[in-house]
Amino acid sequence: MAIEIEEPSAGLSRVAVSETHGEDSPYFAGWKAYDEDPYDESKNPSGVIQMGLAENQVSFDLLEEYLEQHSEAANWGNGISGFRENALFQDYHGLKSFRKAMASFMEQIRGGRAKFDPDRVVLTAGATAANELLTFILADPGDALLVPTPYYPGFDRDLRWRTGVKIVPVHCNSSNNFQITPQALEAAYNRAEAMNIKVRGLLITNPSNPLGAAIDRPVLEEILNFITQKNIHLVSDEIYSGSVFSSSEFVSIAEILEAQNYKNSERVHIVYSLSKDLGLPGFRVGTIYSYNDKVVTTARRMSSFSLVSSQTQHLLASMLSDTKFTENYIKTNRERLRKRYESIIEGLRNAGIECLKGNAGLFCWMNLSPLLENPTREGELTLWNSILHEVKLNISPGSSCHCSEPGWFRVCFANMNQQTLEVALKRIHDFMEQTKIKKNLL
Amino acid sequence: MAIEIEEPSAGLSRVAVSETHGEDSPYFAGWKAYDEDPYDESKNPSGVIQMGLAENQVSFDLLEEYLEQHSEAANWGNGISGFRENALFQDYHGLKSFRKAMASFMEQIRGGRAKFDPDRVVLTAGATAANELLTFILADPGDALLVPTPYYPGFDRDLRWRTGVKIVPVHCNSSNNFQITPQALEAAYNRAEAMNIKVRGLLITNPSNPLGAAIDRPVLEEILNFITQKNIHLVSDEIYSGSVFSSSEFVSIAEILEAQNYKNSERVHIVYSLSKDLGLPGFRVGTIYSYNDKVVTTARRMSSFSLVSSQTQHLLASMLSDTKFTENYIKTNRERLRKRYESIIEGLRNAGIECLKGNAGLFCWMNLSPLLENPTREGELTLWNSILHEVKLNISPGSSCHCSEPGWFRVCFANMNQQTLEVALKRIHDFMEQTKIKKNLL
Repeated sequence: MAIEIEEPSAGLSRVAVSETHGEDSPYFAGWKAYDEDPYDESKNPSGVIQMGLAENQVSFDLLEEYLEQHSEAANWGNGISGFRENALFQDYHGLKSFRKAMASFMEQIRGGRAKFDPDRVVLTAGATAANELLTFILADPGDALLVPTPYYPGFDRDLRWRTGVKIVPVHCNSSNNFQITPQALEAAYNRAEAMNIKVRGLLITNPSNPLGAAIDRPVLEEILNFITQKNIHLVSDEIYSGSVFSSSEFVSIAEILEAQNYKNSERVHIVYSLSKDLGLPGFRVGTIYSYNDKVVTTARRMSSFSLVSSQTQHLLASMLSDTKFTENYIKTNRERLRKRYESIIEGLRNAGIECLKGNAGLFCWMNLSPLLENPTREGELTLWNSILHEVKLNISPGSSCHCSEPGWFRVCFANMNQQTLEVALKRIHDFMEQTKIKKNLL
Repeated sequence: MAIEIEEPSAGLSRVAVSETHGEDSPYFAGWKAYDEDPYDESKNPSGVIQMGLAENQVSFDLLEEYLEQHSEAANWGNGISGFRENALFQDYHGLKSFRKAMASFMEQIRGGRAKFDPDRVVLTAGATAANELLTFILADPGDALLVPTPYYPGFDRDLRWRTGVKIVPVHCNSSNNFQITPQALEAAYNRAEAMNIKVRGLLITNPSNPLGAAIDRPVLEEILNFITQKNIHLVSDEIYSGSVFSSSEFVSIAEILEAQNYKNSERVHIVYSLSKDLGLPGFRVGTIYSYNDKVVTTARRMSSFSLVSSQTQHLLASMLSDTKFTENYIKTNRERLRKRYESIIEGLRNAGIECLKGNAGLFCWMNLSPLLENPTREGELTLWNSILHEVKLNISPGSSCHCSEPGWFRVCFANMNQQTLEVALKRIHDFMEQTKIKKNLL
């Protein structure tokens, strides 16, 4: 609500919420520092290196190669006449050819171990819109979703701002590698009940952002038991599923449902997007895959607020229905991400830093808790500030992900080339050396 | 809310609302009849002609010609390397080049009589998203917007469904050609007050959908006085501004503000889109232009839920920054729409049917009230049903636009070729002849 003109301080609920995600958060401070002094190998070699951006640039050459060889894909099928059909296309179901290609791409990513029906694919302008849309459908204002910590900071805005829905965190910690346990789920659920808040669902990210690790099968089975027992929904955000370093290391909730003959599947909804695995955030392509007919119907109608350009659907329908291309892309992308991951993990280890064992994503989850002067959020932000302004690396503090233990940081490694990554690792190495010297001097 | 699995009838507020816009409305019945039996000149000459779709196909050849001559626009600027930049672009401000081109296009449409600042252009995936987004910002759940009748039926969904905001209709009628009056505004405002509903703004469509007429300058001035006196906002949806048949016949709220040195402009917000004037609904390009800094900032943040594909921004930035193309397009499109309008008005008059005097849009507002057996909503829908199933024309009944007088219908004329329009007119002519014969027999 409600920008009052004569009383600008009254009302303003949605404007006020917007401001709490404003320019004073560490997120924006980090970006500002980067924007003002961006690293460039030749022009600004002492500038800030952006490691706060979960962007996949490691396989871009494969997309470029495809487009060079298939210039017709960016055009209009059968010449210019296809343009008319395409530009006028406004069916909120989306292009059938694109939904088919999307379903088949999602199957390929899961190694064929789960089937997707194109008629259950609902298109949205990115996963941001998909997650908000599901929240609108599954919960009423004042209700809550459970979300395991640490979680993607954007959820505080995406799931809550316009829906009026609350997030109740499920606290996970390093003692079991931040895995979700039935006890943690139960505790969060009970906390909500004690506050008289109705829990409508659980939202997991698998693989996890920021952990960079896929969820194990037994944990997924426990999660399904939990939501069935509580009679709530499960949203499984799988936008990094194609960025697991090896296909066999990823278990989708879809596979578990398939193994259980789709028992209780009507409470499960998957979110996917092409922003991460394919590295196309600018194209705004997200999807909701729901096993619940009512959710599919309602989500499709609601998607009118958030449709994908038919021009973009057309291009991607060509690209993703070329299975020779997609098979090679998925395989190569996984291998390159693994190589990147191994290279950063090794570099950090040489500097004396341990990370959570990961197997997915565009980032690693780095433990700097031994370096904290005070084991608090403030201590973490002090260290983060030094790393930003002295080491000149923009990384993300765990507290922005609601991590319950101070000292963890998310470090992105796929939005730069290997040389820049090595510069970053060298800087961290030097920083750790200096820290050791300082400690010894004290 | 809340699809309850075990108690599917409980909760469900947003799903239930979705169902009230469902397949049982005249809107869907009309579309269903068309889909099952679509007119085709050679293959199905007795099929249903779709006159319920406000789509602009009369100037498509100009777009096609531009694209044939500028194939580089659909590609990536400086060759394939531009693809990377474009695909990764995820700044929610949108491409600067596109915002500039959009602002300049909006100026051209207004004959240069108003200026637009590219930094106030907020991009959204269509006007549907733009109107919803403004409603989220300007009002809280339970608050209301005033909307003059007859209005676009989609507003019942777009402004209310997810926002929880109400619509209080401002009843206009044929006695003054459905013009908005201070008395009608005051009456609606008072009704809201009597129901203890806080009115946050007034939403007008100028030119009006479904009336097909632009709002006169004195009426706009009265509207500005009204919203200033009540301390509320004004949303001016001007998505048909480029479809006014002559530039001089359209007065944008922007021109009035410019003439008043932007006094009180912070309460005014314009919605625009390329779906109607340029005939590109599939590309999902809408925009909010607000004179209020806080609304611009909040809308930009909120637009993350509804971004425009950067591929599409890139193509349209090229097209709209080519002023030789845009000048010719705007001029030719206006002329062609006027010709179409004159041809349908003449044809209807020859059949004995009068329409509201129009000067804009892709439709006319047709008065069939003399034909009603009962001057009620039911009487109107009976007639509508005959026209759909006997005359085989899908037109929109005024009651779906909340028109307070029965017997008015919106008839679209720009989504077909001239030959099809003539078939439709012939059918109406025959229907009127038969009706006369029947009446004489009675």
